[in-house]
Amino acid sequence: MSNDSTSRIAAGLRDWMAGAAPGARLPSTRSLVAEYQASPVTVQKALRTLTAQGLIESRPGVGTFVRAVRAARPADYGWQTAALGTPRAPLRPVSTAMRSAPNDVIAFHSGYPDRELLPERLVRAALARTSRSEAALSRPPAAGLPELQSWFAQELLAATPAGVTPPTPSDVVVLPGSQSGLSSVFRALVGSGQPLLVESPTYWGALLAAAQAGVRVVPVPSGPGGPDPEELDRAFEETGARLFYAQPNYANPTGAQWSPRVGDAVLDVVRHHGAFLVEDDWAHDFGISTDAMPVAARDDSGHVVYLRSLTKSVSPGIRVAAVTARGPARDRILADRRAESMYVSGVLQAAALDVVTQPAWQTHLRGLRHQLQSRRDLLVGSLRDLAPRAHVEHVPAGGLNLWARLPDGTDVDRLVRDCEAAGVIIAAGSDWFPAEPAGPFIRLNYAGPNPAAFREGARIIGRVLDAS
Amino acid sequence: MSNDSTSRIAAGLRDWMAGAAPGARLPSTRSLVAEYQASPVTVQKALRTLTAQGLIESRPGVGTFVRAVRAARPADYGWQTAALGTPRAPLRPVSTAMRSAPNDVIAFHSGYPDRELLPERLVRAALARTSRSEAALSRPPAAGLPELQSWFAQELLAATPAGVTPPTPSDVVVLPGSQSGLSSVFRALVGSGQPLLVESPTYWGALLAAAQAGVRVVPVPSGPGGPDPEELDRAFEETGARLFYAQPNYANPTGAQWSPRVGDAVLDVVRHHGAFLVEDDWAHDFGISTDAMPVAARDDSGHVVYLRSLTKSVSPGIRVAAVTARGPARDRILADRRAESMYVSGVLQAAALDVVTQPAWQTHLRGLRHQLQSRRDLLVGSLRDLAPRAHVEHVPAGGLNLWARLPDGTDVDRLVRDCEAAGVIIAAGSDWFPAEPAGPFIRLNYAGPNPAAFREGARIIGRVLDAS
Repeated sequence: MSNDSTSRIAAGLRDWMAGAAPGARLPSTRSLVAEYQASPVTVQKALRTLTAQGLIESRPGVGTFVRAVRAARPADYGWQTAALGTPRAPLRPVSTAMRSAPNDVIAFHSGYPDRELLPERLVRAALARTSRSEAALSRPPAAGLPELQSWFAQELLAATPAGVTPPTPSDVVVLPGSQSGLSSVFRALVGSGQPLLVESPTYWGALLAAAQAGVRVVPVPSGPGGPDPEELDRAFEETGARLFYAQPNYANPTGAQWSPRVGDAVLDVVRHHGAFLVEDDWAHDFGISTDAMPVAARDDSGHVVYLRSLTKSVSPGIRVAAVTARGPARDRILADRRAESMYVSGVLQAAALDVVTQPAWQTHLRGLRHQLQSRRDLLVGSLRDLAPRAHVEHVPAGGLNLWARLPDGTDVDRLVRDCEAAGVIIAAGSDWFPAEPAGPFIRLNYAGPNPAAFREGARIIGRVLDAS
Repeated sequence: MSNDSTSRIAAGLRDWMAGAAPGARLPSTRSLVAEYQASPVTVQKALRTLTAQGLIESRPGVGTFVRAVRAARPADYGWQTAALGTPRAPLRPVSTAMRSAPNDVIAFHSGYPDRELLPERLVRAALARTSRSEAALSRPPAAGLPELQSWFAQELLAATPAGVTPPTPSDVVVLPGSQSGLSSVFRALVGSGQPLLVESPTYWGALLAAAQAGVRVVPVPSGPGGPDPEELDRAFEETGARLFYAQPNYANPTGAQWSPRVGDAVLDVVRHHGAFLVEDDWAHDFGISTDAMPVAARDDSGHVVYLRSLTKSVSPGIRVAAVTARGPARDRILADRRAESMYVSGVLQAAALDVVTQPAWQTHLRGLRHQLQSRRDLLVGSLRDLAPRAHVEHVPAGGLNLWARLPDGTDVDRLVRDCEAAGVIIAAGSDWFPAEPAGPFIRLNYAGPNPAAFREGARIIGRVLDAS
């Protein structure tokens, strides 16, 4: 329509501005209308384009001006550091797992599954339906959309054995992502300066949330079978901690899955100490050769606080998770969420519910299982063939990651840099350790882009390892 | 399609279950397929329906069972209170402003504008476009979508006078609502146990976030023209506070707007004390007889931390806001946001940006101004005529609320209860005071549903006031 006139006016004004001083006033809309024989709407459009390009600025009621390249005074915010002082607990640096990478590298570092593993059609359809729904314009209750609370409760109910009272929908608090749940749980149930037991290694995001909450992190070693209940018992005893954070299913980074026996033993220890198990079921939808079996389903005495996220399996654009807890613990978590964010966008909640209640969601999950399996097996095999010194001690039964031990004495940071220089991004294991790393480890995500490049990636890692 | 068969099977199974014991096992899918001459897909559909109704439950690999009405053991979570102890700082109760109300009452209490004041068409179109966009399936940077950061920076630039260096897009951190910004600012820039100056009365959500952060709130009286700079100076002096939280434009609840002179005087005081002004520009889009004039636009020395929300003017479903800050303050806020939630859903960011960059958004805002004006004038006039003892000291030049002083000695809580019994919901002023209320006040929102009922609502308030 008027696109051509808009460009013509914008181009003319750019020419004019080339000869104008910064701060000069543009001709009035009226005179531009006359000069360019265009409608006021078209002139306004051209002005908006130039504004968006940062070339001009309008002062309402005064006029439009060539944007002065302001003498960018050297900014000195030194007074701020005096006002703020040293941070009480400096936050950990952001993990490699959050880095974006260019398309031409082989990326094993990400914390997220690649686009091709997401239910794209379901997500787009759900958002389109949501745009026409009540959720687009309304505010849901602080604890979440009742239908979504029910869905989360129902999922846990399906895994609950007879004789155990399942959680109710009102035990569920919907979250804008599970990271927010970790922050709230550590703030509301542990509190600044208090001890928090965590598996070691464990999810770096939990360590970040713990640092933010100012809690004192106490590592409990955890291997391919989970933590040793006796060591856990000792750690509770020695520290007086009231909370143990763990990932019983396909732990990040090790891929460990607890057996029911270990789960029950951990539950016994937790109960014995009048404490909580915070179960982060981050990979519930990423089972390969087994299914995720929430420990929470075997507890009805309020000792398990259960986090379940949909962000990674549905879409990072639809950021929704839930925490299920009972009694005063649930009340304190909800109170913290209210103070933190009042409520979670109903658009995201409605879209997430739409996706996971479609029959095609189950079909998607079945396909995903096969894709993860072949990706995992491809990477395990490639490493075995081409980078045998990166030793995968435990082939995980689910999740997104391999955890590889390198030869003793390997300089992991240097290895990571050398690999990156050769076009392969990997994550140093140190991000997942609350204290010193237990050895030289790297984490490799097999759910990243372009599995066709996995062998080449393994070849490069092997070459760099041999050279180091 | 198979809907009829599905219902037929579901009905048949319900009949069967009526005679079955809780916990009884349902016939296998195979035998149901044979019995009902239906496909396995149809049988599964019927079972899903019954599951969703809570009538049956399936145990993967075991079978499907009539859901036992479990002997709901009386839950005793007493051990939790022992484990958790008394909350350090009990959180304030949730304000009346967050209550949902049935349709048949006259609602003056809400903190949100009514649906008819929202740009419904724009919101739905933006979400539909977003469902087809890259944002539906990707993860934006922690600080926000660059285009949205630019939009927020651009808006502030447009209000920046010559000689002041405007903020850059990278000074902007996108938030999932401004409540999250308050939490982060109080945590990152004040810290537990430290003093925070606030206007009194002020926004209850800020008081809630302050309680969550464990900061010590110090009230500074603020009237229709804002705070007295000398009193503010004294409060900084006496407490050693480094941060003053305020709403210079159409303050909630009083509707006060600071003159440029007051803004400059407050800035001077803040600078003198090496402190921050946290400017909560919550009602930026709700100017009636004036425009919002951000104090932040007149500062380039990093002393103003500027909060701007789109939730209330775009849609409560599209929960997006931003905080603009410079230097180490910005870095600490961003670090806190990362630890708290990693990133904000790109779906919400893209949809918000889509709405506010449509030409129709400006048209909407112009219409909104007129609607707010007539609603405000209607309620002011109705109170004057029918509830003259509810005295509106200051007719606000923008915002959503009237702040009415009642006769000395009025029992406000009782008045609120009596009004509710008569079908009118109002909010007691005490929610907006950090300490004791300065007098008997109520807050009345003129942006709620059904303005045709405003006179009737005022009549009821007047009647209840006369009777009290």
